[in-house]
Amino acid sequence: MTSPGRGRVSLVGAGPGDPELLTIRAVRRLQDADLVLYDALVSTPILKLAPRARCFCVGKRAGRAGVPQTAINRLMCRSAKRGERVVRLKCGDPFVLGRGGEEALTLASEGIAVEIVPGISAAIAAPALAGIPVTHRGVTTGFVVISGHAEDAYRAVVDSLAPGALTLVVLMGLAARGAIAGALLDRGWRGRTPAAVLRGASRPDATTWIGTLRDLATMPVDDSDSAPGTIVIGDVVDIGASLGWRANDARSTVDVGRSMGGHAHDAR
Amino acid sequence: MTSPGRGRVSLVGAGPGDPELLTIRAVRRLQDADLVLYDALVSTPILKLAPRARCFCVGKRAGRAGVPQTAINRLMCRSAKRGERVVRLKCGDPFVLGRGGEEALTLASEGIAVEIVPGISAAIAAPALAGIPVTHRGVTTGFVVISGHAEDAYRAVVDSLAPGALTLVVLMGLAARGAIAGALLDRGWRGRTPAAVLRGASRPDATTWIGTLRDLATMPVDDSDSAPGTIVIGDVVDIGASLGWRANDARSTVDVGRSMGGHAHDAR
Repeated sequence: MTSPGRGRVSLVGAGPGDPELLTIRAVRRLQDADLVLYDALVSTPILKLAPRARCFCVGKRAGRAGVPQTAINRLMCRSAKRGERVVRLKCGDPFVLGRGGEEALTLASEGIAVEIVPGISAAIAAPALAGIPVTHRGVTTGFVVISGHAEDAYRAVVDSLAPGALTLVVLMGLAARGAIAGALLDRGWRGRTPAAVLRGASRPDATTWIGTLRDLATMPVDDSDSAPGTIVIGDVVDIGASLGWRANDARSTVDVGRSMGGHAHDAR
Repeated sequence: MTSPGRGRVSLVGAGPGDPELLTIRAVRRLQDADLVLYDALVSTPILKLAPRARCFCVGKRAGRAGVPQTAINRLMCRSAKRGERVVRLKCGDPFVLGRGGEEALTLASEGIAVEIVPGISAAIAAPALAGIPVTHRGVTTGFVVISGHAEDAYRAVVDSLAPGALTLVVLMGLAARGAIAGALLDRGWRGRTPAAVLRGASRPDATTWIGTLRDLATMPVDDSDSAPGTIVIGDVVDIGASLGWRANDARSTVDVGRSMGGHAHDAR
């Protein structure tokens, strides 16, 4: 039973993929939901936590267009105004490169109650699950997170950063990894700066590639480049290698392309 | 019952404070734990999730020294080698400015099984819970997270960033907020850049102050400066103000010191 008074939209972070990395609050919101609008990369076991809800995928994936943002907004508004509990389920954290702010503004302008349920962002968790801390005393006391999905999204950031001062984490940047690495090298970053490409973190098919910034610039772009992934560039990547981390989760495979001695190559 | 074979240390993120922002995996690790070593700011309701465990606070707080890192390491190693399940419970995420990398390296060098359980970092969640997205299309496509606990931790970062290019998030920087804001102004950041100080995010006593970078530079430092808090500097702070967010959680209080027209002052 629903009534207009209790209608609400929760912008919920689904974390990097493993259902165990959902927060308690995210699980509760899913359990209570009447409608779930989810991104394409949200995994099936997570959707099973919302048994009462109508669930619709609204994300774009592998070249196929998703539901337009205006339609997503309309669906959320209409449902909440009918008194339903709506979960807008986003990969990672809803306020990290996920248009969560835009959706919250739209909903608020319609007078709809909105809450944010933070999620585990792959920006921090993907490296962590590969044994790489984004900060490490004596190495770096900070990190930068940027979007690599388009040149106008990363170019200004790359140009504004002093080479090597901070750990650089790139989300949605797999397809552009060569261009981003090239831009960093042009800006004066060392070619031997350690780099990692982390795909499917926390998922059964997770892989870790470790190499150098120069490797990254010259890596061939293959068919799987539309896969989700996190790129980490900085000396902290060596911590993961030092840990000899085979992955946090026994299901993961690790593909270490750089020997500890510093001789860099792509092992694949 | 424990046996040496199952001994393990889980470096677990406790999130920003609210137990509902723990991950499912964190709750499971606490439920199974024989020993919990926790940071001073971890809340009592979270510790109640570990009914079987011996729980010890090892963090430093408000000027009182904590347990030395070498002693923490020794406790973890000894317990894990006895076959116990150890949870090292850290505020936020264990790999964001939390010495998680150092502890993982020490444990791995002793041959002890270590896992990382990522947590919700206040770096992203504190602004999110105040309605502030760290990224927002058309405003910024990236953010920087730095430690403000000591000048040598933030000075190099501040000097390496182009003014205003990214959202700047400062953790452990409340005491140094004036110095950090001053350093940014010296570097050419606009005095009118929006800024927020978020204390106790997700906790019952959460407060939000919103003003400008210039306000931040001249804010009086008061007795409560040892409180945990997150500073956010950048145009995204205006999104939170635009949302008219009274707080994600009805328990929170919001103290908005800057009118939307841009006239800046500290309302307190």
